[in-house]
Amino acid sequence: MTPTELRVAGGTRTYPIYLRQDQGAELIERLLPLVKNGQICVLSDERVSRLYAHEFVETLSQKGVNASLITVPEGERSKSLTTAEYVYKQLVNVGADRDTLMVAYGGGVIGDLGGFVAATYMRGLTYVQVPTTLLAQVDSSVGGKVGINLSEGKNLVGAFYEPEFVWADTQFLTTLRDRDIRNGMAEVIKHAILQGEPLFQLIESCEADLSSGCPKTWRNVLPQVITVKLDVVERDFHERAERRYLNFGHSLAHALESSPGYGHLNHGEAVAIGMRAALRMSQIHIDLDAATVTRLEMLFDRLGFPQLSTQMLSAETLRYLRTDKKKSGGVQRLILLASLGTPKVVECDWSEITRKYESILTHPLMEA
Amino acid sequence: MTPTELRVAGGTRTYPIYLRQDQGAELIERLLPLVKNGQICVLSDERVSRLYAHEFVETLSQKGVNASLITVPEGERSKSLTTAEYVYKQLVNVGADRDTLMVAYGGGVIGDLGGFVAATYMRGLTYVQVPTTLLAQVDSSVGGKVGINLSEGKNLVGAFYEPEFVWADTQFLTTLRDRDIRNGMAEVIKHAILQGEPLFQLIESCEADLSSGCPKTWRNVLPQVITVKLDVVERDFHERAERRYLNFGHSLAHALESSPGYGHLNHGEAVAIGMRAALRMSQIHIDLDAATVTRLEMLFDRLGFPQLSTQMLSAETLRYLRTDKKKSGGVQRLILLASLGTPKVVECDWSEITRKYESILTHPLMEA
Repeated sequence: MTPTELRVAGGTRTYPIYLRQDQGAELIERLLPLVKNGQICVLSDERVSRLYAHEFVETLSQKGVNASLITVPEGERSKSLTTAEYVYKQLVNVGADRDTLMVAYGGGVIGDLGGFVAATYMRGLTYVQVPTTLLAQVDSSVGGKVGINLSEGKNLVGAFYEPEFVWADTQFLTTLRDRDIRNGMAEVIKHAILQGEPLFQLIESCEADLSSGCPKTWRNVLPQVITVKLDVVERDFHERAERRYLNFGHSLAHALESSPGYGHLNHGEAVAIGMRAALRMSQIHIDLDAATVTRLEMLFDRLGFPQLSTQMLSAETLRYLRTDKKKSGGVQRLILLASLGTPKVVECDWSEITRKYESILTHPLMEA
Repeated sequence: MTPTELRVAGGTRTYPIYLRQDQGAELIERLLPLVKNGQICVLSDERVSRLYAHEFVETLSQKGVNASLITVPEGERSKSLTTAEYVYKQLVNVGADRDTLMVAYGGGVIGDLGGFVAATYMRGLTYVQVPTTLLAQVDSSVGGKVGINLSEGKNLVGAFYEPEFVWADTQFLTTLRDRDIRNGMAEVIKHAILQGEPLFQLIESCEADLSSGCPKTWRNVLPQVITVKLDVVERDFHERAERRYLNFGHSLAHALESSPGYGHLNHGEAVAIGMRAALRMSQIHIDLDAATVTRLEMLFDRLGFPQLSTQMLSAETLRYLRTDKKKSGGVQRLILLASLGTPKVVECDWSEITRKYESILTHPLMEA
């Protein structure tokens, strides 16, 4: 029996993730009891508004709710202080007060921006997350992190702020573009790498259906994928230790995302490249077995993820990596993999990190 | 025996307010154990930097701390998203990370802005408040409210975020200007009105020393003044009921502060005028005795607070009051006074509120 509800614990408050397939009417029923002053403000982006959120707000209005739609442009650039200010002002314009319910209806950008605005408008609104992308359903809506970017770096401004509930309906996945699926798929694979053989085999067994966004298949797989993150978050909500495992593949990914030469990569593609690098590094330095590396590389290949190139480990990229590391905390860490299901945090200084990245270039990939 | 420490409870965490007179060295000793990565960032305004914060940062540096001073212009205009962004960028520039300790060193603006930045930079820094004005010591540093203004209204963006401790040293009061003292004095009197006869008599008994900013006298009086707010905040941290009493005099004050004609009034002056109005309204509508009204009016007069004028209750001001009320919540409320120490919340619709304000103009003040 596939679970219909997961619980996110570890923060100041426990909240449910409802797992559904095509149950929009139930979402409305679950929102109505949370409405205190008759008002709901829905935040979405232009694409999701056209597909879903506009109609959703109309349905709320028909139910007698004073419902407003606030729309921002699609994409990472909306995770900014400027856009947050725009949303605050729209909230003032529609007369939102402390009792207004906010719904963040969209992908990761909308969840992070909407959650940040909810955390800070009039010192905190009640809010609900409706993640419409795979990435948001498996990753960004889980764990209470909300935030926006500065030009100096991603997620530099934010908070830990829990929604009333998360509504993960796999029917949304049917309107995703191939690259949007791939964007989430990298995090799904990361979760499977951290969890181990059982989840990994499950994913391999229905790989084609997953990558075509089949809502029924995702409905079956999603609970187990999300549970990996839930377990880690519950044990280490404020990312002082184990939650760092979730950064597997993310150091190089962030460096590529910051570097002007790789603007064409989305987050998932960058993370997949980062994981390819981390896997090879794990093979060279902590004896991850070659068969596992090959198995994962082949999965990335089949799903159409880009290859790791020599260029991506150039001195320039490593400079971005270093800046990013410096910004995100004092101690330098590498997240490596000892075996499927066994990540390992290696603390080392900057010159050691550089050497380890460079070693990937000088050690040819050992085939299994 | 005057207490040396008060505790603020009711939020997610309890924290101390240390009450001192001229104990700067002890402040440094209390900060050092909180330094995790060797770094302290001190936020201050231009005036307080010149008087205190610059030297404070130098002392920290001599103790081996990587200490930086971030300075913003004096005044309410620094409580903006633009200034918050400037502070975030300065934090990035000096390499601040999640383990950096922040010290908000200044008046209410610095406390509110610094607390907001601390609450949101990298999802939350540890921070300490060093309130240097009377207003900040008796009011804004107590209770965990932090925030900034939008052009649409005050404190529309913010959070509840507790400091590690508050350092209230009355020696700072010696460098305040007369109007800065008056700015805080209005809240002191408000606290005495809410508490009742004992605190009120204490304040009347040393009125002259208090209004000249005598640090020793304030050291004696401050604990009792702060305790009034502490008790209310502890019982109702998130302002769902009793904490509203603290808004006594504040509706009209906010309207005057928003209205372009009253830009010359500081917060305390506006609050004193608001209290004059609330007292007369209480006399007319809920039988507050005339002797109490006269006693308070005379205290305001002696301290040099402006008079309530007909103009201040004009249709235009009441329009600002209405807009402000609409922004800050659905239900309309008046905070009145039944007797010294007994505030009363009256819920009424807008036309009733207008009539009550207008009644002040048509009922001459009954002398005791």
